[in-house]
Amino acid sequence: MAKVVRNIARADADLIRRLGEAGVATVHEAQGRTGLMSARMRPIQQDFGMAGSAVTISAPPGDNWMIHVAIEQLREGDVLVLAPTAPCDMGYFGDLLATSAIARGCRAAVLDCGVRDTRDLRAMGFAVWSTAISAQGTIKETPGSVNIPVVCAGAAVHPGDVIVADDDGVCVVRREDAEAVLASAEKRMAAEEDKRRRLASGELGLDMYDFRGKLADKGLKYE
Amino acid sequence: MAKVVRNIARADADLIRRLGEAGVATVHEAQGRTGLMSARMRPIQQDFGMAGSAVTISAPPGDNWMIHVAIEQLREGDVLVLAPTAPCDMGYFGDLLATSAIARGCRAAVLDCGVRDTRDLRAMGFAVWSTAISAQGTIKETPGSVNIPVVCAGAAVHPGDVIVADDDGVCVVRREDAEAVLASAEKRMAAEEDKRRRLASGELGLDMYDFRGKLADKGLKYE
Amino acid sequence: MAKVVRNIARADADLIRRLGEAGVATVHEAQGRTGLMSARMRPIQQDFGMAGSAVTISAPPGDNWMIHVAIEQLREGDVLVLAPTAPCDMGYFGDLLATSAIARGCRAAVLDCGVRDTRDLRAMGFAVWSTAISAQGTIKETPGSVNIPVVCAGAAVHPGDVIVADDDGVCVVRREDAEAVLASAEKRMAAEEDKRRRLASGELGLDMYDFRGKLADKGLKYE
Amino acid sequence: MAKVVRNIARADADLIRRLGEAGVATVHEAQGRTGLMSARMRPIQQDFGMAGSAVTISAPPGDNWMIHVAIEQLREGDVLVLAPTAPCDMGYFGDLLATSAIARGCRAAVLDCGVRDTRDLRAMGFAVWSTAISAQGTIKETPGSVNIPVVCAGAAVHPGDVIVADDDGVCVVRREDAEAVLASAEKRMAAEEDKRRRLASGELGLDMYDFRGKLADKGLKYE
Amino acid sequence: MAKVVRNIARADADLIRRLGEAGVATVHEAQGRTGLMSARMRPIQQDFGMAGSAVTISAPPGDNWMIHVAIEQLREGDVLVLAPTAPCDMGYFGDLLATSAIARGCRAAVLDCGVRDTRDLRAMGFAVWSTAISAQGTIKETPGSVNIPVVCAGAAVHPGDVIVADDDGVCVVRREDAEAVLASAEKRMAAEEDKRRRLASGELGLDMYDFRGKLADKGLKYE
Amino acid sequence: MAKVVRNIARADADLIRRLGEAGVATVHEAQGRTGLMSARMRPIQQDFGMAGSAVTISAPPGDNWMIHVAIEQLREGDVLVLAPTAPCDMGYFGDLLATSAIARGCRAAVLDCGVRDTRDLRAMGFAVWSTAISAQGTIKETPGSVNIPVVCAGAAVHPGDVIVADDDGVCVVRREDAEAVLASAEKRMAAEEDKRRRLASGELGLDMYDFRGKLADKGLKYE
Repeated sequence: MAKVVRNIARADADLIRRLGEAGVATVHEAQGRTGLMSARMRPIQQDFGMAGSAVTISAPPGDNWMIHVAIEQLREGDVLVLAPTAPCDMGYFGDLLATSAIARGCRAAVLDCGVRDTRDLRAMGFAVWSTAISAQGTIKETPGSVNIPVVCAGAAVHPGDVIVADDDGVCVVRREDAEAVLASAEKRMAAEEDKRRRLASGELGLDMYDFRGKLADKGLKYE
Repeated sequence: MAKVVRNIARADADLIRRLGEAGVATVHEAQGRTGLMSARMRPIQQDFGMAGSAVTISAPPGDNWMIHVAIEQLREGDVLVLAPTAPCDMGYFGDLLATSAIARGCRAAVLDCGVRDTRDLRAMGFAVWSTAISAQGTIKETPGSVNIPVVCAGAAVHPGDVIVADDDGVCVVRREDAEAVLASAEKRMAAEEDKRRRLASGELGLDMYDFRGKLADKGLKYE
Repeated sequence: MAKVVRNIARADADLIRRLGEAGVATVHEAQGRTGLMSARMRPIQQDFGMAGSAVTISAPPGDNWMIHVAIEQLREGDVLVLAPTAPCDMGYFGDLLATSAIARGCRAAVLDCGVRDTRDLRAMGFAVWSTAISAQGTIKETPGSVNIPVVCAGAAVHPGDVIVADDDGVCVVRREDAEAVLASAEKRMAAEEDKRRRLASGELGLDMYDFRGKLADKGLKYE
Repeated sequence: MAKVVRNIARADADLIRRLGEAGVATVHEAQGRTGLMSARMRPIQQDFGMAGSAVTISAPPGDNWMIHVAIEQLREGDVLVLAPTAPCDMGYFGDLLATSAIARGCRAAVLDCGVRDTRDLRAMGFAVWSTAISAQGTIKETPGSVNIPVVCAGAAVHPGDVIVADDDGVCVVRREDAEAVLASAEKRMAAEEDKRRRLASGELGLDMYDFRGKLADKGLKYE
Repeated sequence: MAKVVRNIARADADLIRRLGEAGVATVHEAQGRTGLMSARMRPIQQDFGMAGSAVTISAPPGDNWMIHVAIEQLREGDVLVLAPTAPCDMGYFGDLLATSAIARGCRAAVLDCGVRDTRDLRAMGFAVWSTAISAQGTIKETPGSVNIPVVCAGAAVHPGDVIVADDDGVCVVRREDAEAVLASAEKRMAAEEDKRRRLASGELGLDMYDFRGKLADKGLKYE
Repeated sequence: MAKVVRNIARADADLIRRLGEAGVATVHEAQGRTGLMSARMRPIQQDFGMAGSAVTISAPPGDNWMIHVAIEQLREGDVLVLAPTAPCDMGYFGDLLATSAIARGCRAAVLDCGVRDTRDLRAMGFAVWSTAISAQGTIKETPGSVNIPVVCAGAAVHPGDVIVADDDGVCVVRREDAEAVLASAEKRMAAEEDKRRRLASGELGLDMYDFRGKLADKGLKYE
C-alpha cells in the first residue's frame, strides 16, 4: 500500500501567494468556514504567515523515513504536510531535514506530530506549524506514502491543495477551489477595509450591521 | 433572560493602574489567594501587564453577537471579559472588533474561548488573554447578556471588577475590595523589596525566614 | 523520610558546558534516546540553551518550602530540579527565589509544576523550564527532600546528573555517563556537519543514506 | 477569611426530589441552559441520578481538612460540593469521610478534585461525581470555608442551591429559582412524552417541528 | 453549500454483519492499520460491538439541526456519524433523537461531540460512541450537510462506508474495500485461532514466531 | 543497550497478597504517600483489586516486540509493567498476548500506553490498567529491555517491586520495603476500623481527631 505519487497538480503561484497574504482567518471565512486544522496546530515562530502547495506524507507513528522520500518530490514553494497514522508527539523533523527541504525550494512544514531543533529552524528561516515540540527521535523501518489524501490535525488534505498558515493556525484550500476562494477572500478584505475605517472612527457594529432591531426581536433587554 | 446592564460601577482609575503595576502574582497573594483564572488562560503577547474594569459578556458557544453589544458599554480603561456558556475554542474576537473596542478606549480582552488575527492584534497594541487561538468563525444568532456576573476560566467575575493581567495569567479583584487589596499589595511589595535585597546579597531564606528550627521540628534531617 | 543530602558528586564543568552546546536533540540521540522529559516541559524564554548539575527537590503538592532548603545546597552552575509528589500546576517558584538562587550561582530551574513572575525572571536572565505558568501561591507546611532520586516530567533524575535544556525541552544525562555521552554527541555533531553540507548542496537523503533499495524491498512503489 | 456559615436556606425537599427525577439534561434546558458543570465532572457509578442541597466547601489545593468541618453542617438530603482554590486532582474524599457523611444523612458528593476508595463508595451506595480518581492523600494544614459561594467545575454554586446529578453530569439550580425551574422542567417532560410517542411511531422531526421550510429558506438543497 | 445527498450506496448487509463480528482491532489490522478514529472516541455502553453503514452529518459547532435531516435518510442497519465543523463537546444527541432513529431502523451513533441522556440510551439499547458526555443543549439555526465526506475524530468517512465499533473504539472501512477487508479479517481470525490455542498451551511467542534469532541479530542480550 | 535480566528477586507471595487486600489508597498512605502512578492510569475492569511482582518492559514507542520477550520471564503472580520510551497511546497488548501471559501464571498488566481487545480481556479475567484504550497496532522492529528500572506513568518501578492496583489506580511498593509497608498498612487498617465504627455511629471527625481547637487557632470563624 506504500506508494509515492510523483506528478501532482499545483495551484498557480500568484494565486497561492495572494491566499497567503489574505491569511488564515479570512481564507477560512471565504471558503465557508471549512478546512481549518485543529487549534492544537501551533507555529514555532511568531508574526509570520505564508502559503504553499501541499506535498503530503502519511507516516507510521514514530517513523520519519518517508520525509526523505517526500523531499525528492518537493518543488519551489511547496509545504510538507505530515500526518502520522496514529497520534504521536515525537520529533519527526529537525534541522538536517530542513536543510534538505530548503535545497529543494521548500520553506515550511505542517506536522501533526512533534518537531525538534526549533531554535535552529527559526534561525534558518524555515517555518513550522506542529502539534508538539519534542526532541524524541524517530526510526526508519516502515514505509508510508507520499502525495496521497491524508487527515492532518482534523483537516482533510489532498496533494497539491493550498496550505495557508499564520499565527492563527493552518487552513487547507482545495486546489480546484483556490481561485474562487481567493476571489471571495479579496472581496471580503476590501469590504473589511471600509468596515475597519468606520469602526475606527467610532461607529458601532450595532449600527453599522443594523443589529439593534434583530437583537430586540430575539428578546434582548436593556436595564 | 438576555439583558444588558448599562450602568455599572467601576473602581477608581488610579487604584486600577496601581493594581496593574503590582501584577498578578502579588495581587493574588494580597487578596488571600483568590480570584485567579485557570492556567489555561494565556496572553498572545509577551512581557506586558495591565489592569482595567471588567465589562462582562455571557455568550452562547460559538456566537459572538454580544461582543458588539458590549462594545457600546465600554469606557476608557475597560477590559472585555467573555465567558461562553459552554466550553468553546472558536475565534470569537479579531481585528475588526478590536478596532471598534479601541475606538471606545478599551485596550484589552480576556476571553475564555479562542481569538484570531493575533498578529494584527499585537501590531495594534491590543492585549488579549485567551484559552485558545483559533481562526474558526462564530455566528450571530442568539443573544446573551452583558454586565451580569459570569464564571470565566474558573473565576467568578462581576461587572466592574478589576481585572489584573500579565504574563503569569489573569486575576480578578472584586471592585469593593480593590482599595484594601491594593493597600495589602503595596505593603507586600515594600516588604519584598527588602527581602530581595537581602537575598541578593547572599542571605538564605532559611535564615531570613527563620525556617531551620521549624523544619527540624517537622523531621527534616541532613545527611 | 524528609532528608537533605549535602554532598553530591557533580560532573566536570567543561564536560557540562559542552553537553549544553550539543543541545537536547543531539544529546538525547547520543545516549540511545533515553532521559527525555515529557513534551509538557516548556521554556519560558526563547532561543536559549544550557546545561548544569541537578540539585533535586521532592516536594509535596502545593508546598515550596524545600526550595529554600535546596538553595543552600546550590553551587555555581547548578540547576534546580523540582518534582512534586502529585501532579500540581501551582506557582512554586518566582522572582524572590530566583534572586536567592542567583546569589548561589544558579541560573536555571526545571520544574514539573508552575512558575510565576515569568516576565521578571526573563528580565533577570534566569532560565526556567516548567510544565505550567501560574501565579497560584504555595504553602510552607510539610518538608520534602533535597538531593534524592526523583521522577520529573516522566524522567528519572539523580542528584548531580547533567540537565541539558533548550527550546526543544529537557534531557537528563546520568552523571557517570556524561563523558561517554559527550564523546558520542560530539562525534554525531561532526558527522552531521558533513551531512548538512551535502544536503544543503542538493544531495538527497535517499541517496546519501542509500535508502532507495531498502524502501523498494519493503514494498514502496512509485506512481 | 476562613469561615463557616451555619444556617443556610434549603429548597423544599419534594421540589428537590422532583428536580432529581427530571434529570440533568431536562433541568439544564428548563433553566435556559445555565448552571451546567464542565464535562470533566464524571460519576464513579453508573445509571444513577439524584438531587440535593449544596453544602459548599472552598478548600486549599491538596487539603481536605474542611470536609470534616462541612460534615457537621450536613442535613438529610444534602450534597457536599467541593471546589479547591487551585486545580488539583488529589484524592480529597474516601470511605471514612463517606461513612461520616452518611451518618449525617448525606448520600452524595460533587468534587472538583479527586476521589479515592471508589469501589468501597459504590458498595456503600454513596454517589460521587468528581473530576479525577486518585488515591493521592491530602493534608490538614490550612482552613478554608464552608457554605460560601464557590465556582465548581466552571459553575457558580451558592450554599443551599439544588444540585442535580446523573450520568450526564451535574447541573446547579439556584435555590430561589428551584420552583420555577421545576415547573418548566415538568412542562417540558410532558411535552416530550407526546413527542417521544410520535417519533417512536415513525413521524419525522422534520415534519413534527415543521423544519422543512425553514431549512430550505436557509439554503439546504437535496440531491 | 448545505446539501443532502439522498441516494448513497451501502455495502452488503451480511458483509457488514461479519465485519462487526470481526471487531475493531482485527478489521483495523486487516486493512493495513488505517481508518481508526482517535482514542478520544469512547462508547457509553460496555461489552458491545456492531457494524453499520455510515450516514454522515457535517454540522456547525453547537447546532444539531441536521440530525433531524439525517434521520430521514436512515435505513435499517445504518449508523449516524456526526462531525462538527469545529471541536465541540456539547450534547448534540439524546433520547428523543434516538427514539426517532430507532423508528428508522438505526441502532447506533458515532459522534465527534457530546451525547446526553446516556442512561436512557443504554436502557433503550441504542449504542453510542462519542468524544464527550454533556447535557449542554444545542441550537437549530444553521444548516450543514448530510451524506458528504467528513473527518470524524481524525478519520475520513464517506457516506455508505462501513463503521465497525466496539469497546476498543471505532474503525472505518471504505465501502468499496469492505469485501476484501472482510476476507483478510476472516483469514486473520482463523490464523489467530491456531495461535491462541498454541499460546494457551504454553508455547511462547518467541518460538512460535521465531523471534529469538532476529532479536539477537538486533543486539538483544540476556543477563 | 537492549537487555533482558532473567533472575529477579520477588517479594514473598503472602506479603504480596496482603498488600493487594490493603488496596492502593491504604498502601500509598502507609509508605508515606510515594509510589503512586498518574491518575491517567485507569482500569479496564471495575470493582477489582490485586497485587503482583513487576516484570518490567522498556519498549520503543509503537513497538510491542519486547512483550513476547517479557512473557518468557513471567512466573505465577507476576504483573507485566510496560513503559514506552516516548508517550504513546497505541494498543501494545491484546487477547493473544494475554493468552500467552495467562499460560505463564500472569493475570494482570499495567501499561503506560494503549490496550486493545478490552472486552475479550475482561471475559478472560485478565486485569489491565492502562493510560489509553486503542486498537492501533504496533510493530516488532526494535528491541527494548526487560527487567530494568523504568518510569511508568510517572512512578519509578524496579523489577520485582510489588504492584498494587485497584479501582483507584496503581501504586508501586519497593520490594525491599514490602514487609514494612504491609505492617504499616495493616496497622492503619486496624485503626481505621475503629474510626469507621465511631464515624458510622455519628461521632464527628472534628471531635474524634480533636480538630476544633486547631482550626480556631488557625483562624476559622463560625457565623
